[in-house]
Amino acid sequence: MKLNRIIANAGEWLSGDGPHRQVVVSSRIRLARNLARTPFPGWAKRAERLHTLELLRPAVESLPEMRESYAQNLTELTALERQVLVERHLISREHAAKGAGSAVVMNVEQTLSFMINEEDHLRMQGIRCGLQLHETYAMVDQCDTELAECLEFAYHDDLGYLTACPTNVGTGMRASAMLHLPGLVMSEQINKIINSVNKIGLAVRGLHGEGTEAMGNLFQVSNQTTLGESEPQIIERLNEVILHIIEHEENSRQQLLEKRPAMVLDQIGRAFGILCHAHSMTSKEALNLLSILKLGVDLEIFPNSDAAPSRATIDELFIETQPAHLQKGAQGQKMTAEARDALRATLIRAKLNSLPPPDTAKVPLPEVSKQTDDE
Amino acid sequence: MKLNRIIANAGEWLSGDGPHRQVVVSSRIRLARNLARTPFPGWAKRAERLHTLELLRPAVESLPEMRESYAQNLTELTALERQVLVERHLISREHAAKGAGSAVVMNVEQTLSFMINEEDHLRMQGIRCGLQLHETYAMVDQCDTELAECLEFAYHDDLGYLTACPTNVGTGMRASAMLHLPGLVMSEQINKIINSVNKIGLAVRGLHGEGTEAMGNLFQVSNQTTLGESEPQIIERLNEVILHIIEHEENSRQQLLEKRPAMVLDQIGRAFGILCHAHSMTSKEALNLLSILKLGVDLEIFPNSDAAPSRATIDELFIETQPAHLQKGAQGQKMTAEARDALRATLIRAKLNSLPPPDTAKVPLPEVSKQTDDE
Repeated sequence: MKLNRIIANAGEWLSGDGPHRQVVVSSRIRLARNLARTPFPGWAKRAERLHTLELLRPAVESLPEMRESYAQNLTELTALERQVLVERHLISREHAAKGAGSAVVMNVEQTLSFMINEEDHLRMQGIRCGLQLHETYAMVDQCDTELAECLEFAYHDDLGYLTACPTNVGTGMRASAMLHLPGLVMSEQINKIINSVNKIGLAVRGLHGEGTEAMGNLFQVSNQTTLGESEPQIIERLNEVILHIIEHEENSRQQLLEKRPAMVLDQIGRAFGILCHAHSMTSKEALNLLSILKLGVDLEIFPNSDAAPSRATIDELFIETQPAHLQKGAQGQKMTAEARDALRATLIRAKLNSLPPPDTAKVPLPEVSKQTDDE
Repeated sequence: MKLNRIIANAGEWLSGDGPHRQVVVSSRIRLARNLARTPFPGWAKRAERLHTLELLRPAVESLPEMRESYAQNLTELTALERQVLVERHLISREHAAKGAGSAVVMNVEQTLSFMINEEDHLRMQGIRCGLQLHETYAMVDQCDTELAECLEFAYHDDLGYLTACPTNVGTGMRASAMLHLPGLVMSEQINKIINSVNKIGLAVRGLHGEGTEAMGNLFQVSNQTTLGESEPQIIERLNEVILHIIEHEENSRQQLLEKRPAMVLDQIGRAFGILCHAHSMTSKEALNLLSILKLGVDLEIFPNSDAAPSRATIDELFIETQPAHLQKGAQGQKMTAEARDALRATLIRAKLNSLPPPDTAKVPLPEVSKQTDDE
């Protein structure tokens, strides 16, 4: 299967439906595994990395879950193609920078994506739409069990799974959810929430993980510790915290709509107006405006019509307007940042332009006097 | 005639047509005159100011140019009504603050507006659409001649007309034009132009005269000196400078369109999108966005259609969205700034919403690659 066929469709987590979809974009589980008695990729010589690849790639490809799959050594992909996979959250930024011995294997639904010779020998990722941490874990856990039948993973009776970085030792698991929190950002409660989540030992990060800025009101919440608790315990704790955040987010959206309806309608109207009529847009601005538009859809501010912007349209634009996705569409011509910004605006206009604007009648605004010709 | 009947229509300078209308919004001539042997309004006692009013108001009202006119003592107008007249440039901010003895007389076309007991006993203003300084002067000069037949103005053989402030002594004339200069602002050449205009003894000011900020890319250019030159000489010098500024402005618009078409189209598209979809807007933002929209009309970027935004629609919005005009429409209810911002956005949406957006085909953009599904 070719990369283009994979990326022609949005992954299941983008196009599908899942619980708490209004706030939770996706749930992810990543398990880190390493082969016993084999140097970690960062310490391994080229030949050792290639040997790891020879062992792992066929094992992963023969998983029943990978019956229809896409597998590729990273050296066979251009820098641009790797960047497309990063933008789809199918490989990590670190993995995209790797050379000989590194590979990716993913199923056609893009719910499973396994990286070979990233920081660890094998990183198994499951990603699903909405809040489905338990379900996603079950999916990845099943693959782990199947692989363990033919591979020997580095395991220590006291510590658990051994990993290249000590912060992953134990379960080797990172569970995370991507949350869309425009309500908490608009009502300026987001920092309070981030602080409390940090205090109970969970991490909150921006769109592309550690060290990245929060754009488009998207925040990734994940476990920090991998030792001392079982996988289901870690996931259950994370799940409960996320349910709390969802409640806070939905409360702030409701509060905003009740107490500052004009501001909310204004923000959504402006985002819609700019997206429909701009002719140049950076990816950062696009993310931020699409986030506000998505809030408008969630709040049902757009007319009840098939023509109104749908969550799916907006989610697709979130992905398609990223730099590598745009560049990929340019048929091999190297685009300047300026040309990308123009193409991004053109794509967005094409998708949104014929859509009806927000419907004022849907927001209970205080009465405003109309202009009259009283004499 | 009632004030409401006057302000129900836009003045001739707003709704009419005149030379160089793409850059010159209006031309104004103001003559300051004082009665001989009578204290200036600032030094006069109340009874003396009332006496001046009794002398001047009937004289002005009986001018043939004022056959159809509106005359009002300022004490009979509310603060809001005076502010409406200021926003229409029919009286000055200073005049609006005056009390007993002050009055205004204007013709129904709003091309002539005479202030009684402003800083001087009489200030005669003519205002016309586009660049018509000579024509406007002729109109006001005629009134001056007619009034001089029945009134004795304070005049000194060496100095000329005597005025309350020495900066007006001589001709007592201030000639000015309101210029719309978005091209010079966008291309960052405006400060250079302002500096050279200042150097040759002319003044450049913001929308509401001295000490006001330049908003909506509107600049008022006027003579500084009133001594040593005849009125036609002063006007001719000003006229020539303005013709030069017009040339610079039109050059920068052409340059922007040729060298940065994407930026221009983007700015106009965004202004259009925000104006059509915002639900709250300050008067400053409205002025600035309407200015960009007007540039789009001047550059003929909108489709050739009756439905496209016209210069007249935009010029009307410039006036109607000002605070006092909005408040005037609210049937006596005192509006909060927030309610005004909401009403302003509603008015603008109502006028612009059904209009077609800028037409990309009208701007020669460099070719941008389209997204394809190449495999």
